[in-house]
Amino acid sequence: MMDLNCTFTRLAKNNIDEEMYSLIGELYPICRSITGDGVRSTLDILKKRIDLKTFEVPTGTQVFDWTIPKEWNIRDAYIKDGKGKKIVDFHDSNLHVLNYSIPVNKKIPLSELKNHLYSLPEHPELIPYKTSYYKETWGFCLSHKQLQQLKEDDYEVYIDATLEDGSLTYGEYYLPGKSSDEFIFSTHICHPSLCNDNLSGISVTTFLAHLLTGQKLKYSYRFLFIPGTIGSITWLSRNEALVGQIKHGLVISSVGDKESFTYKKSRRDDADIDRIIQLILQQNEEPFSVKEFSPYGYDERQFCSPAFNLPFGSLSRSAYGTYEEYHTSADNLDFIQKEKLIGTLKLLLHAIYMAETNTRYINLYPKCEPQLGKRGLYNALGGHVDSREREMAMLWILNYSDGNHSLLDIAEKSKIKFELLAVISLILNQHGLLDIKTGNISKEPSFVS
Amino acid sequence: MMDLNCTFTRLAKNNIDEEMYSLIGELYPICRSITGDGVRSTLDILKKRIDLKTFEVPTGTQVFDWTIPKEWNIRDAYIKDGKGKKIVDFHDSNLHVLNYSIPVNKKIPLSELKNHLYSLPEHPELIPYKTSYYKETWGFCLSHKQLQQLKEDDYEVYIDATLEDGSLTYGEYYLPGKSSDEFIFSTHICHPSLCNDNLSGISVTTFLAHLLTGQKLKYSYRFLFIPGTIGSITWLSRNEALVGQIKHGLVISSVGDKESFTYKKSRRDDADIDRIIQLILQQNEEPFSVKEFSPYGYDERQFCSPAFNLPFGSLSRSAYGTYEEYHTSADNLDFIQKEKLIGTLKLLLHAIYMAETNTRYINLYPKCEPQLGKRGLYNALGGHVDSREREMAMLWILNYSDGNHSLLDIAEKSKIKFELLAVISLILNQHGLLDIKTGNISKEPSFVS
Amino acid sequence: MMDLNCTFTRLAKNNIDEEMYSLIGELYPICRSITGDGVRSTLDILKKRIDLKTFEVPTGTQVFDWTIPKEWNIRDAYIKDGKGKKIVDFHDSNLHVLNYSIPVNKKIPLSELKNHLYSLPEHPELIPYKTSYYKETWGFCLSHKQLQQLKEDDYEVYIDATLEDGSLTYGEYYLPGKSSDEFIFSTHICHPSLCNDNLSGISVTTFLAHLLTGQKLKYSYRFLFIPGTIGSITWLSRNEALVGQIKHGLVISSVGDKESFTYKKSRRDDADIDRIIQLILQQNEEPFSVKEFSPYGYDERQFCSPAFNLPFGSLSRSAYGTYEEYHTSADNLDFIQKEKLIGTLKLLLHAIYMAETNTRYINLYPKCEPQLGKRGLYNALGGHVDSREREMAMLWILNYSDGNHSLLDIAEKSKIKFELLAVISLILNQHGLLDIKTGNISKEPSFVS
Repeated sequence: MMDLNCTFTRLAKNNIDEEMYSLIGELYPICRSITGDGVRSTLDILKKRIDLKTFEVPTGTQVFDWTIPKEWNIRDAYIKDGKGKKIVDFHDSNLHVLNYSIPVNKKIPLSELKNHLYSLPEHPELIPYKTSYYKETWGFCLSHKQLQQLKEDDYEVYIDATLEDGSLTYGEYYLPGKSSDEFIFSTHICHPSLCNDNLSGISVTTFLAHLLTGQKLKYSYRFLFIPGTIGSITWLSRNEALVGQIKHGLVISSVGDKESFTYKKSRRDDADIDRIIQLILQQNEEPFSVKEFSPYGYDERQFCSPAFNLPFGSLSRSAYGTYEEYHTSADNLDFIQKEKLIGTLKLLLHAIYMAETNTRYINLYPKCEPQLGKRGLYNALGGHVDSREREMAMLWILNYSDGNHSLLDIAEKSKIKFELLAVISLILNQHGLLDIKTGNISKEPSFVS
Repeated sequence: MMDLNCTFTRLAKNNIDEEMYSLIGELYPICRSITGDGVRSTLDILKKRIDLKTFEVPTGTQVFDWTIPKEWNIRDAYIKDGKGKKIVDFHDSNLHVLNYSIPVNKKIPLSELKNHLYSLPEHPELIPYKTSYYKETWGFCLSHKQLQQLKEDDYEVYIDATLEDGSLTYGEYYLPGKSSDEFIFSTHICHPSLCNDNLSGISVTTFLAHLLTGQKLKYSYRFLFIPGTIGSITWLSRNEALVGQIKHGLVISSVGDKESFTYKKSRRDDADIDRIIQLILQQNEEPFSVKEFSPYGYDERQFCSPAFNLPFGSLSRSAYGTYEEYHTSADNLDFIQKEKLIGTLKLLLHAIYMAETNTRYINLYPKCEPQLGKRGLYNALGGHVDSREREMAMLWILNYSDGNHSLLDIAEKSKIKFELLAVISLILNQHGLLDIKTGNISKEPSFVS
Repeated sequence: MMDLNCTFTRLAKNNIDEEMYSLIGELYPICRSITGDGVRSTLDILKKRIDLKTFEVPTGTQVFDWTIPKEWNIRDAYIKDGKGKKIVDFHDSNLHVLNYSIPVNKKIPLSELKNHLYSLPEHPELIPYKTSYYKETWGFCLSHKQLQQLKEDDYEVYIDATLEDGSLTYGEYYLPGKSSDEFIFSTHICHPSLCNDNLSGISVTTFLAHLLTGQKLKYSYRFLFIPGTIGSITWLSRNEALVGQIKHGLVISSVGDKESFTYKKSRRDDADIDRIIQLILQQNEEPFSVKEFSPYGYDERQFCSPAFNLPFGSLSRSAYGTYEEYHTSADNLDFIQKEKLIGTLKLLLHAIYMAETNTRYINLYPKCEPQLGKRGLYNALGGHVDSREREMAMLWILNYSDGNHSLLDIAEKSKIKFELLAVISLILNQHGLLDIKTGNISKEPSFVS
């Protein structure tokens, strides 16, 4: 069984917060999109830390109701004014180019140019992030302030991009456990220079995968690094056979900003993953927000589509689309806090620990209480400062281990920390008081005559 | 499918508020009771607007545990003082006579008269409405003020009434729809000169029936104009075979006063009609009150009796028996507000619209989201000012159309207006994304492998 | 059927409050423990009031996971200082001796004595109550104030006790009713001079048993006077065959102090006993507290262990272990209030009345309302000041007597007092409107076609 404390110690010793932040810094300049070399370079960098397998799905491949689009690659882009001065330059910020722009190279007057310019009047200093994946066009994004200063002139617009048959690239890291049942973490890798959304998700997921590597685990773990929407659709269409094995899933995105956690529940509403994350958040001291499932947001839209209805929740700090830095040039390195990255990593490790250790036990002495004293379990625990709490944990576990209640159920009912219940249940198991319950949950405790 | 907007336009164009109010004025002077010519004249007036069928059930007929009583008719009634002056006159207000009084014609002293007088000490200016259907007696109702001014004298009491074998009369208007499943509106017609209770109900129900006539409807509609209690018992006893077809029902009464709506839920508590009315009330801007079912009130008592347990709610403005004008001469034409009549009519049309359009769809592309863009459904809706809301409606409908959720379920979950969901689901259906789900609800989405 | 009013009248006439208090006074000086002559003398005193049967279970008997311990008896105990002065004397308070102390007789210095002394630093005036049933040792309890005043000296410690093979004693009073289904009251008898915990429970239970004796009852009643934990384990191990007959159970303890009631629900959470006690508490005017089941407290721990999961709640005033007098010399006769004893007795009688009269009826006229008037039931009840409430009770009972709802269900739904519903249902039954429903609850009202 995974040891949570050891793992937490490793986090502290290895300055993983620095490493996570620095990975974000390394990935930041790359211009990613839903296809293309930006994704490939990103995955190559991740491969230095985890043994990621990458997949290439050719343009034109049918994935459910969708088709893999042409591959987009960009080398350069700018707008020059009449005097030949670059006033907008892709090399300053890759957000300047409408993502998936087709190539262009011509001189046009301001009036025509304006049809291809995107800005944010409500945030006049920021460059917006815009895309046009499925409608072929070109465009530039710039601050509204700059847009307003543009004078009548002939402008040279230049985009050196290609949109051609190629493939969609995604990465997958699979960590086999004792069981073929899976816990999946999915993070999107299609955004260019945007840090919280979603270099934070990429970085935390990578380090999570790294930390789990080599641990003895019950579940098999799969980490998906995929372009948003088309990526999860592609993955699901190629992995339908796996669907029955997916027991827990989390979509990880926007997990590095200063806010406390937002958890969006799965469509099932009370999947174990929903209960696990809520239990952890309730035990934490910081505030948090839990949202009901809605069919809008990140890739949980696909994982929770009605034919799959997978137990996938979505974890963020600032909620999807609600913050002013969202999809703008303000989602930069300054927007990320190292301690928030590490806090996210800890939450995820905690969730994994709970999924790994959650067990339904059956009390082997269910008629009245077993005599704990004669086994040295009662008071004998007096050495612990928390002996009374441990005693209560024993009583709760014994009373509710009727084959129908898991440790998660008992934690919810008793308000005792899951970790303590997990430790105590092992002790009770070692003393022959509990057995592990396998098979289905019966309506009535099985030992009631 | 019924078009709600068109119908609302017709309401406005035709000054139906004036017409409803004027119908109340026409019916006001008639002395109605649970039997007799007052009911017949009332139904005759309604027949000018809707093709009502009337039924006569003979005195002595057994209707479940009850028996149709003798028919009561009254022509004149008064009290004269010693000087021969009429001090109480049926022709001033039919409330003056205890409803179902037997004939009387004698001179009696004040002391004896007082045993037959009814007044309201707590509302000394008002004449109460009193009945004695099942105990043969006679009496007069008058203001407490007048009662207190009566001096010792010999009074002539005269009631020219008959209580004889005859029949109980009720009216029914049936509007066949595509399905034999029924939506029933029931309103009581047994009260004499009382406007809110229940000429308002009679008038609104009549105009509702009138407006639905000629529309293409899914459900069959039945409008019952029946005396309270004995009328619904009679109708149910004669129409037991229909019971299985009744899918929605509403008892309409006291719907013209100035108060906001009171909805009393059916005994089933979560029948579709309960959910529909609550959803409309929640979407409206005015306050409202929802009450749990109780076996006391109007004819829902009979429709919701345990052997029938029909999905019948009860709609009023001021709640049953709670207002001081209730069952007094103050429930007159001044107590009715035209805009409240029209507001009730609109609510009922809205409820009908929802019952008619509520559908369980099945998403034909349930694996991930279908690609809305390529069908021109996504953003292409940008022309609408509410394009984002329409987009969300599409996503909600697609995600929850697993065969187990109706539009009503989706409206409750998503908080999106039912009308928008109804419109969007038709569009999705036209684009081949949705099919109509028929048959029973399965526990699990049928397409989950 | 038990008559609640008659029984309440008997309570008042017989000064039972005085008698209950005086029984507590009689039992107070006895040094009880989980075994020994203290328990036997206690039961002998109770035998003067109820025909209690006592049982002796030999040391060494296996009772589930436990073994009946050696029997403990004590005659004398003291600590003398160097001058031979008794500074701690068992005859002043039996709390002075660690309950289950082994014999000792020696002189020891203060430093060694201190290892055997127990006090309460947070309540320096009070003597604590301490036990050591399963670990052989000796000790004294004293006020912290006295402990701090002890000087360096040679102390004589003397405990004249025996811990030998013998038996565990418990008492049982069985009152057979019409049915072999049982209602059990259990109270612990193992505490020495402590009044609230649990002489109050012993006294109230004794008088409850006494009052029920001779009454015609539906249920059979069993009153258990048992040592805590080992006693209930012993009883359950010897009476496993009875378990299926136990329909309601209450653990009674700490019911004489000044506080209002605390009810701890059974592990089943919505057993009839849980609903009955909560309904009574809600109808009472005083505040009360209801707690969820937890596997810690009094003997409900054993009755609600997972293999039995019996419908046992636990009734107290001050909750288990929460008051500062708990398990100290301050839990003395002054801590008990007579009116609280009688209040507890009334609550228990009320609960018994409800369990006895709770019935599922079936309305024999379920199609619409039966005509109450022709049976003289409607208005004819006008003589009662509460005639309207009685009328409502009739309507509620008739509407919900579909075979699925008991009077308890109807009381919860209607907010009408259970007692009124019980009386009215008898009247309706006598008038042939209701029949008693036997057999299982069906999902649907059985008379719906």
